[in-house]
Amino acid sequence: MKDIYIADLVNFDEGKLFDGFFLVLLKQQRTTKTNKPYLNLILGDKTGQLEGRVWELSDPRIAKEFERGDIVKARGSASRFDDRLQMKIDQLRMAQPGEVDKTDLLPSTTYDVAALWRQLLSFVESFTNPDLKLLVTTLLDDPALAAAYREAPAAKQLHHAWLGGLLEHVVSLLTLADRVATHYPLLDRDLLLTGVILHDLGKLRELSWEIGFEYTVEGMLLGHIQIGTALVERAIDSLPGFPPRLKTLVLHMILSHHGKLEFGSPKLPMIPEALALSFLDDLDAKMQAMATEFDKCIREGKGPDEMTGKVWSLDQRQLLNTKRWLGEGKE
Amino acid sequence: MKDIYIADLVNFDEGKLFDGFFLVLLKQQRTTKTNKPYLNLILGDKTGQLEGRVWELSDPRIAKEFERGDIVKARGSASRFDDRLQMKIDQLRMAQPGEVDKTDLLPSTTYDVAALWRQLLSFVESFTNPDLKLLVTTLLDDPALAAAYREAPAAKQLHHAWLGGLLEHVVSLLTLADRVATHYPLLDRDLLLTGVILHDLGKLRELSWEIGFEYTVEGMLLGHIQIGTALVERAIDSLPGFPPRLKTLVLHMILSHHGKLEFGSPKLPMIPEALALSFLDDLDAKMQAMATEFDKCIREGKGPDEMTGKVWSLDQRQLLNTKRWLGEGKE
Amino acid sequence: MKDIYIADLVNFDEGKLFDGFFLVLLKQQRTTKTNKPYLNLILGDKTGQLEGRVWELSDPRIAKEFERGDIVKARGSASRFDDRLQMKIDQLRMAQPGEVDKTDLLPSTTYDVAALWRQLLSFVESFTNPDLKLLVTTLLDDPALAAAYREAPAAKQLHHAWLGGLLEHVVSLLTLADRVATHYPLLDRDLLLTGVILHDLGKLRELSWEIGFEYTVEGMLLGHIQIGTALVERAIDSLPGFPPRLKTLVLHMILSHHGKLEFGSPKLPMIPEALALSFLDDLDAKMQAMATEFDKCIREGKGPDEMTGKVWSLDQRQLLNTKRWLGEGKE
Amino acid sequence: MKDIYIADLVNFDEGKLFDGFFLVLLKQQRTTKTNKPYLNLILGDKTGQLEGRVWELSDPRIAKEFERGDIVKARGSASRFDDRLQMKIDQLRMAQPGEVDKTDLLPSTTYDVAALWRQLLSFVESFTNPDLKLLVTTLLDDPALAAAYREAPAAKQLHHAWLGGLLEHVVSLLTLADRVATHYPLLDRDLLLTGVILHDLGKLRELSWEIGFEYTVEGMLLGHIQIGTALVERAIDSLPGFPPRLKTLVLHMILSHHGKLEFGSPKLPMIPEALALSFLDDLDAKMQAMATEFDKCIREGKGPDEMTGKVWSLDQRQLLNTKRWLGEGKE
Amino acid sequence: MKDIYIADLVNFDEGKLFDGFFLVLLKQQRTTKTNKPYLNLILGDKTGQLEGRVWELSDPRIAKEFERGDIVKARGSASRFDDRLQMKIDQLRMAQPGEVDKTDLLPSTTYDVAALWRQLLSFVESFTNPDLKLLVTTLLDDPALAAAYREAPAAKQLHHAWLGGLLEHVVSLLTLADRVATHYPLLDRDLLLTGVILHDLGKLRELSWEIGFEYTVEGMLLGHIQIGTALVERAIDSLPGFPPRLKTLVLHMILSHHGKLEFGSPKLPMIPEALALSFLDDLDAKMQAMATEFDKCIREGKGPDEMTGKVWSLDQRQLLNTKRWLGEGKE
Amino acid sequence: MKDIYIADLVNFDEGKLFDGFFLVLLKQQRTTKTNKPYLNLILGDKTGQLEGRVWELSDPRIAKEFERGDIVKARGSASRFDDRLQMKIDQLRMAQPGEVDKTDLLPSTTYDVAALWRQLLSFVESFTNPDLKLLVTTLLDDPALAAAYREAPAAKQLHHAWLGGLLEHVVSLLTLADRVATHYPLLDRDLLLTGVILHDLGKLRELSWEIGFEYTVEGMLLGHIQIGTALVERAIDSLPGFPPRLKTLVLHMILSHHGKLEFGSPKLPMIPEALALSFLDDLDAKMQAMATEFDKCIREGKGPDEMTGKVWSLDQRQLLNTKRWLGEGKE
Repeated sequence: MKDIYIADLVNFDEGKLFDGFFLVLLKQQRTTKTNKPYLNLILGDKTGQLEGRVWELSDPRIAKEFERGDIVKARGSASRFDDRLQMKIDQLRMAQPGEVDKTDLLPSTTYDVAALWRQLLSFVESFTNPDLKLLVTTLLDDPALAAAYREAPAAKQLHHAWLGGLLEHVVSLLTLADRVATHYPLLDRDLLLTGVILHDLGKLRELSWEIGFEYTVEGMLLGHIQIGTALVERAIDSLPGFPPRLKTLVLHMILSHHGKLEFGSPKLPMIPEALALSFLDDLDAKMQAMATEFDKCIREGKGPDEMTGKVWSLDQRQLLNTKRWLGEGKE
Repeated sequence: MKDIYIADLVNFDEGKLFDGFFLVLLKQQRTTKTNKPYLNLILGDKTGQLEGRVWELSDPRIAKEFERGDIVKARGSASRFDDRLQMKIDQLRMAQPGEVDKTDLLPSTTYDVAALWRQLLSFVESFTNPDLKLLVTTLLDDPALAAAYREAPAAKQLHHAWLGGLLEHVVSLLTLADRVATHYPLLDRDLLLTGVILHDLGKLRELSWEIGFEYTVEGMLLGHIQIGTALVERAIDSLPGFPPRLKTLVLHMILSHHGKLEFGSPKLPMIPEALALSFLDDLDAKMQAMATEFDKCIREGKGPDEMTGKVWSLDQRQLLNTKRWLGEGKE
Repeated sequence: MKDIYIADLVNFDEGKLFDGFFLVLLKQQRTTKTNKPYLNLILGDKTGQLEGRVWELSDPRIAKEFERGDIVKARGSASRFDDRLQMKIDQLRMAQPGEVDKTDLLPSTTYDVAALWRQLLSFVESFTNPDLKLLVTTLLDDPALAAAYREAPAAKQLHHAWLGGLLEHVVSLLTLADRVATHYPLLDRDLLLTGVILHDLGKLRELSWEIGFEYTVEGMLLGHIQIGTALVERAIDSLPGFPPRLKTLVLHMILSHHGKLEFGSPKLPMIPEALALSFLDDLDAKMQAMATEFDKCIREGKGPDEMTGKVWSLDQRQLLNTKRWLGEGKE
Repeated sequence: MKDIYIADLVNFDEGKLFDGFFLVLLKQQRTTKTNKPYLNLILGDKTGQLEGRVWELSDPRIAKEFERGDIVKARGSASRFDDRLQMKIDQLRMAQPGEVDKTDLLPSTTYDVAALWRQLLSFVESFTNPDLKLLVTTLLDDPALAAAYREAPAAKQLHHAWLGGLLEHVVSLLTLADRVATHYPLLDRDLLLTGVILHDLGKLRELSWEIGFEYTVEGMLLGHIQIGTALVERAIDSLPGFPPRLKTLVLHMILSHHGKLEFGSPKLPMIPEALALSFLDDLDAKMQAMATEFDKCIREGKGPDEMTGKVWSLDQRQLLNTKRWLGEGKE
Repeated sequence: MKDIYIADLVNFDEGKLFDGFFLVLLKQQRTTKTNKPYLNLILGDKTGQLEGRVWELSDPRIAKEFERGDIVKARGSASRFDDRLQMKIDQLRMAQPGEVDKTDLLPSTTYDVAALWRQLLSFVESFTNPDLKLLVTTLLDDPALAAAYREAPAAKQLHHAWLGGLLEHVVSLLTLADRVATHYPLLDRDLLLTGVILHDLGKLRELSWEIGFEYTVEGMLLGHIQIGTALVERAIDSLPGFPPRLKTLVLHMILSHHGKLEFGSPKLPMIPEALALSFLDDLDAKMQAMATEFDKCIREGKGPDEMTGKVWSLDQRQLLNTKRWLGEGKE
Repeated sequence: MKDIYIADLVNFDEGKLFDGFFLVLLKQQRTTKTNKPYLNLILGDKTGQLEGRVWELSDPRIAKEFERGDIVKARGSASRFDDRLQMKIDQLRMAQPGEVDKTDLLPSTTYDVAALWRQLLSFVESFTNPDLKLLVTTLLDDPALAAAYREAPAAKQLHHAWLGGLLEHVVSLLTLADRVATHYPLLDRDLLLTGVILHDLGKLRELSWEIGFEYTVEGMLLGHIQIGTALVERAIDSLPGFPPRLKTLVLHMILSHHGKLEFGSPKLPMIPEALALSFLDDLDAKMQAMATEFDKCIREGKGPDEMTGKVWSLDQRQLLNTKRWLGEGKE
């Protein structure tokens, strides 16, 4: 476990020493006005990121060969420039394998991933439709896919943008969808839950989360809807006897889950399960985005009577935390 | 109970006799080419409406003084003109009070209204917030309001457009919202359920449902959002000690429940409960609209492989009934 | 070849006899006011469609077992009802296999399909990129796919809505795209032409054209963009050594060819070839829609100074035929 | 009266002394790189706002207990940092009650508020409809409401964003609406003028103008349309015998005065008076926004041939001052 | 003056005789089921239009050579078919020049055109800017243009769609604009009034009003904004010494008077006068459209409590006539 | 020719000397914190622009009388402030006429303007329609217009934003349009090419390109569509016997070439040639914008796997350079 986090550094007094592991998010060679070369770095961990400067390039305590994406151990002191904190770095070396847990270096879910995964599997276990059960099991049994599924963020920025975020979002949706499915006789529960589990599968390849969260070029050009549809179609085609109509319905749910053409779904939901999926997916994303904004307000020291800033993923709305405003929470 | 319904008449052979109670939806005096006066009527009941003609105006068996909105007993025979069925009416008299149940004359919920009402009250009973409980109880204890609440349709045409439709929609939403509230710690359950019960209260005066479903002039000019907000505000102001912040939140939920400015909400949802309400309200309306469309397809004899026509309340989408298409239903 | 077409019948005098082959587009049993049963038919061929009535159902000269989609030989006389022409049918029998060419019964391209196909193949022949050449060849060598490709309409209604319309549209686009590719050094010609040939491949399964032009249920739920992408992806995956980046680009072109999210493309064109394809596809469709409208005006007897009606596929615009208005054409 | 204004300071040379009253808009404690604490302030008055720094926190001439919203007397010198002017503050004390006129500290109307108020009352005096006259009089006779009405800005930023701006806007609109009412026989003058006086009444609670102009939380959640409608409805309900139809019309005018759903009106104008009100309100706001922009250009030293920057409240348009461009004004 | 109008005929009993002058709006030769030829006509006058039939084509009392656009004298009797009234025509001859006033045959303004024209000229007379006065005078002195200006409708359908409608609309706008100009010091009155007089000048060639109201081909392709701008530009260029900046402003007002790009203005209003013109033009058109709708309701026998149908030119809104609803009018 | 360009300076080390000709784009007198006056300049040439500072205002080697828009010779050294390069200027004088080529000071086409002009003229030479040939020739024979046509940029920022850019765009479009015209028999080639040559003619007065690229006030108020239409209409009116219908069509093409009302075209394309022009104009602009973005990426050192930033003129899309990504180019 890491001893010190970016979030701690922010409150350091000028000159206070630190020593810890960080992920290199940017490395640039620059020159001062007086022509002195120095390194400009951005170092990050799961709590945030911060600028750092290495002034003594020839110091033997400064490693030469590290790059963007490497994990390093850095030692130095806090330093303020124009009211912004920087890290003045005196020593820097590559981290040894195993010295630090990678999940400490990128934001990640606060839930227990193994428990989430068991919840997911127990939902699959409950399916009564053998074809859908076999399909989902086949996909989740693929070790590489399962590993990625447990790690992937749900988005680059909008909601659940942390390691394990996709799984956290899907398990939340499964619970929700299960309750909704029993409420409407029109809905085929297993089909709806299958849609929940598979709808964002394409994100496993649309996004990369090795060093920060980025879109891959393939992700930009094809999008997770297409990537996921293709993945699922291939899995279905490998299952002899999977009913063709059921295949069409499963694919339709993935294709239409954004709910509107202008959000990148090439088809509008045309079956009850697809309609329900698009509503619940959107609701869960927005509820989580709200929770994230409210946490941010508390972290930033805003009072209970202050609304949030304009939230991009909620149409620039400003939000109010009901429970805090009513004084129900126990701050 | 009525013996014969419009829906039955549609399959009558030419000249077959009928005798039943109907609601007069239109009454016009017209003249034939050869200058003969006749009555053109539209008669309806809960299963639909049909054109009727009275040729012998001076026949003593034809009542003189009936008007639009009256319930009549009509006797005559089926008659086809240009392939469309008409009622050729030989006898017509005003119905006696009590001869026919009004709920037979307008479409109405298939649920037991008393049971729905008990479900609604038991949700209120479960509230832990005393202010909200008192507010909702005060409103529902008003006998006139409660009577209207049990009768009102939820809309003129789009969804739950039948007597008792509003109550049916609200009880469905309560069940759903209750499940969602327990899923998200961010949500104040009693506030959300209060929003569900009160969000469409203005429809009690926006719509009239005496003779068909119509907008009142007041409803057209003010809308149910404003009418409902005013009703609730007045109720709150009559409760000494109701917390002002809670009042603002309750009113905000009614104001924002359409979710978008262009749908007539003057404010976007800015608190978690309002966001959840707007999603669930929309989802329940669309699920019901789907169910109605699928029933219509079956009534019209469409096969399981045929999609519905373009559905106005679902952006002109065509829909497919999953369970029928997969052959799961037992037709 | 057929002797008589629907378009000829329209000018028949009352009572004039006809005898010809037609496709049954609708068959309904109905009853007159006086309770006499009759058949109401809609018969069509490549020039249009017309209502027909069979009054003597028990006449042995009237076949019993024909259905929607059958080809029949009908004999009877022209008859006018309310100023609209009908066919009064006295004899009707199933057509023998080979008696009539199916292309006479649905609208079809005026071009020689074999010649269009050769043009298409010679474009493929000219490719210098061996991977793209192999991909396209592999697809077009599939006999079932090739047969469908030669028959499919390009759309249900909007443009090139006739048998062979897809092929006609693609060959027109190939010529155009070839000229544009040599104009912009930025463009990879083979990639652009591959996009042209494959962009609408999904229509082979989105549409059916056995009896009139209809969407299949699969077509409605998945759309030709998804169906085509999957078809091409499967073909690529069967080619060992196909470069993965090239695969991504080919799929991107199909996904983005509608040019806008709201037209059902899940991705906007992000490479030069995709941008060019979306422009040229749209231009060719609209030029053909204009030509079709102008032909219709001439057929309907409109003068050169009259604009067309409002054209749905061109945003309800009214159009003017430049050459006719300037008197350049030789009508 | 104040001796020195922010607008004067902007032209001060480095080191020139100042001494004056200001409103504290922001107060933050910060630390320099060398760990020295200092105060960062934003001070404002009716002409603008400026950053100030207090370096000697322990100096007895620097008050300890002032907060955001206090009026202070500050003495110091002008100082430039990175080409931006700052106030270097050496002495600072709380202002005594009565030392400075609050209207000097926030931007306020250049008109005589008492005269504007008399104009407003004389319009009311001219009403011939006794019900409307009584309604408006009842509202304006409430001393708290009248005081707020005379002080409120018309908006936070868009137009008439200064103390007294609402009254100024309403009186301008009354004059205009009176002229329009006599032009169209369709218009009921008293109803139109009533709409003008009451349409923005909700802004008295939507906005706060104690320290800068801000939205209240209630204002954010309910909006001035709802707040104003409720205020007026309550006033009407307190008047026995007020005609119900007239009440509906008055409320409709407030509800619909933004003219479009997407501007937050839950209803479109459906009566002539509401339509006229929405047009004139929008026109007056935009004419005033134009005048404000043109004044700003002159203040900033732009020439008569230069257009304004992009104006947010006019769809990012750039504007030209006709009279200046034609050289008609006498600058 | 005409003795009998279409509006009178509508209430005729079967077989009642008529004899009057009408404009031929359509002439078609048709054939009955039994192969008998007849003429189908549409005859109109300023009160409406009606279908007519001539059965005895060879009757010497029926003129042979009349065409669409001719004025005819027709004699016959009222006849009902399918509940719709028709004219059964027994005699028909061309009208003699002078027998009937053309303004009786197309809908036209109820105002005195000569008086409206004098009002227009007296506004011009009041101009103090000599350049603008000369420009407007030059244009209105052109006899052909002045004649067309006095006759033109303001639109094909939306508002003031009658002969003299343009002049009526302009004079109403002048009065209104004059009042607004004196209210805002920012506005150059003469420039605003010039914009009012010239803004729709292009309609003199965009529309034709000889036989019904139609767009010309030139009108369709160029639009009245371009046609009017060109007309005015040419007039300005013929005036030596007209200030170039003033020319730019006048043209800008015509170009921008629709107020939005999507309404066909290539430029948004960027000067105060153009902004005011676009608001007032829109307001006057909508007030007149409202008045027309309310008149239609009275004519159709709707009660004061009934709203209008959905009005196309007012975004499908339904409207309520305030004065009638309040019972103020004396019907 | 210039010896040194802004683009070279960017890579200069601190303190390295330069000496070259530049265009003055901004000149401001400022004061330091310590009250020392200095000059802040922005100097530019065809490769970019850079900030410069003159500290010794009284040095006799610094010219006094230069202004924005002048060409100067400046000598000094590179200097870095906050990691941004500046020019520290020690000597500065006005350039002598002829010392520097103006095309070196603003970005300009990389093509040979004389050759482009000959290509344009040879297209005109190929016209078979004598009226269109005479019209275009008449316009291009005007020496002032021809000089401006050869110099004008095609846009301020979006595409072809360099001297000669308009001509470069038109010649590219002519080649393209010629190929398209021969592909569609519906198209009148000469009319289409006339539209290409004249569509942006108004830009000669909408934009100014003396010092940087700016809109003129006339350009802002009227727009190049109106300015160009008027220019062409005047030219046509000077040609006796030019067919009126042809005039309408030519003007329609200019008016409608932006293709959509919301892009500032007052009319949608309604003839085949106008539709084709609007497509090709848009395609050529976007292809050039793509090429410009890809060049910028290479200049900025982005790798072949990196997509461009969000491109404003392509709806904020990010783009990928196909050929570089596939490794086809030989960088």
